[in-house]
Amino acid sequence: MVEAAFELFRKRGYHATAFSDVVRESGAPRGSIYFHFPGGKQQLALEAIALAGDEIEEMVEAAAERATDPGSLVRALGDIVAKRLEESGYQSGCSIATMVLELAPYDEELSAEFDAVFARWRAALVAQFEQMGVAPERAAVLAELVMSAIEGALVLSRAARGPEPFRSTVDALSAIVDHEAASPTVASQPRRRPARRPRGVERAPRSR
Amino acid sequence: MVEAAFELFRKRGYHATAFSDVVRESGAPRGSIYFHFPGGKQQLALEAIALAGDEIEEMVEAAAERATDPGSLVRALGDIVAKRLEESGYQSGCSIATMVLELAPYDEELSAEFDAVFARWRAALVAQFEQMGVAPERAAVLAELVMSAIEGALVLSRAARGPEPFRSTVDALSAIVDHEAASPTVASQPRRRPARRPRGVERAPRSR
Repeated sequence: MVEAAFELFRKRGYHATAFSDVVRESGAPRGSIYFHFPGGKQQLALEAIALAGDEIEEMVEAAAERATDPGSLVRALGDIVAKRLEESGYQSGCSIATMVLELAPYDEELSAEFDAVFARWRAALVAQFEQMGVAPERAAVLAELVMSAIEGALVLSRAARGPEPFRSTVDALSAIVDHEAASPTVASQPRRRPARRPRGVERAPRSR
Repeated sequence: MVEAAFELFRKRGYHATAFSDVVRESGAPRGSIYFHFPGGKQQLALEAIALAGDEIEEMVEAAAERATDPGSLVRALGDIVAKRLEESGYQSGCSIATMVLELAPYDEELSAEFDAVFARWRAALVAQFEQMGVAPERAAVLAELVMSAIEGALVLSRAARGPEPFRSTVDALSAIVDHEAASPTVASQPRRRPARRPRGVERAPRSR
């Protein structure tokens, strides 16, 4: 039931998904549903959002298994996300982005849950980057940039109904993360002033 | 009328905006509206989307007036977008993103219009970057990355109901664009192969 809701919210968003659509998709008997989800559509949304948090953590972990450094981690994560996007015919992007844009300004409870999903994604990326030898503040900056770029590229590729914006963004992003992990341009600098890069200091990515 | 629709679609999305809400917000007499918008809500959406294209071009132009190089252009554009986001109490992000995610998979006509807005934004950024001396292919790659990161950072900041994800992303992005414009890491390379780096930019050996 929650999985059916998760898929419908992801593709159509919140408003265009009726509680009865979820019941139909799930194939669950109608009576049991009102018993298990007395909070109706909002309760379903809360549980679907939690599922989105599990999913993104699993995706980062799967990407990390194929990666040897921060750049290849971003590439692997991009491949996982791109595959799903393409297989869905550009109908399925981020599990929660549609709901975030529809609801975040109006529903404080859901808004906190959305933010918690992004916090789990951020923490998973930061942990992987740090394990790969990136300094904590720089790992945080890169994680935020990676999340923003992937989220936005999904919006652009859904509008284009094609892989190009997403692929181009992930290619650029992974090259930049490769580069930034080794010789930072953006790490934890005060606003508007680029960080100093120690000259000639090379760092080999730590293999996990 | 189109402006009222533009604001409502931006904040609430398509499904949660009723034609009658737009009529009420606009203060236009009801009779004249059905005369001018016989296509109803979809026609309004098409005109609001065109307005979004005008707006993003104006924003890039305003940013370019304050900028001296690609990095400061990104910073200025980020400031313009951030100001609007913050003034709206995190209710107003990208003019069309909510509609893109709600509708792009289901409505081919609107989907083409969304893509046309992003194409105008892309062309405006590429033109500015090129005027600032960035090579064409590199300008295209950077424009795509900038658009993706700004779009996605708006989603994250709306979930967070705060400026942090957006500010952090734009700071990192502008530092990277500064750097990439001068010494490219990401320019027009074939997939998965980093572009040649100019002398003096150190990078750790890749372990893939």
